[in-house]
Amino acid sequence: MSLDAVARKFVELCSQGKNFDVMETMYAPDIVSVEGNGEETVGKGPVIDKSTRWVEVNTFHGETVRGPFFCGGTETDGQFAVYFTLDITRKATGQRLTLDEVALYTVKNDKITREQFFYDGDH
Amino acid sequence: MSLDAVARKFVELCSQGKNFDVMETMYAPDIVSVEGNGEETVGKGPVIDKSTRWVEVNTFHGETVRGPFFCGGTETDGQFAVYFTLDITRKATGQRLTLDEVALYTVKNDKITREQFFYDGDH
Repeated sequence: MSLDAVARKFVELCSQGKNFDVMETMYAPDIVSVEGNGEETVGKGPVIDKSTRWVEVNTFHGETVRGPFFCGGTETDGQFAVYFTLDITRKATGQRLTLDEVALYTVKNDKITREQFFYDGDH
Repeated sequence: MSLDAVARKFVELCSQGKNFDVMETMYAPDIVSVEGNGEETVGKGPVIDKSTRWVEVNTFHGETVRGPFFCGGTETDGQFAVYFTLDITRKATGQRLTLDEVALYTVKNDKITREQFFYDGDH
């Protein structure tokens, strides 16, 4: 599968709310996930656990996914970026929020090997 | 100046349409600019010339700048991302378009040393 095809499949599945399917099927076993504060999580299992913990403390109403966007790369490997707008409620406070973030994905051999989340403030 | 301050000044100036002021004052002499197709332009002068050529063939009606967004980095050095929505008309065809792109900036010693534009299709 090409970088382009991986990126478009990623956006299609996320747009359908299938974010956990994406992680299960498209993430490399040794994926590195980097949060806005620079904290890294290594490995598909720990990365999925991180998302599970996030879902436990936030009610997810929906998301808008813009992209994919490309900058160079080869036919098969490289990076793509996506712009997420998340509509959530913090379960602890009941506060409803819109969260914007840029996500940057690195693809090698049809798998996502690195994800970096760029945002401002607490997500 | 901190990475945070550089990024916020960048967004403030771009939001005022002062993109060329940004390039003149915030870009390192040896900045590398990477377009969506992977093509690199090296040096502040050539990068400004590239933008000048773009402005010559597009009528610029306005832009929305979302961000800055952060992912790690130190107090002074690191990266920030911005999401641009450009409202333009191609002078050659008269076609009015909305262009979306993610821009990723690398900051070292208070200057922007690298910019990468992620988009889909022709910009």
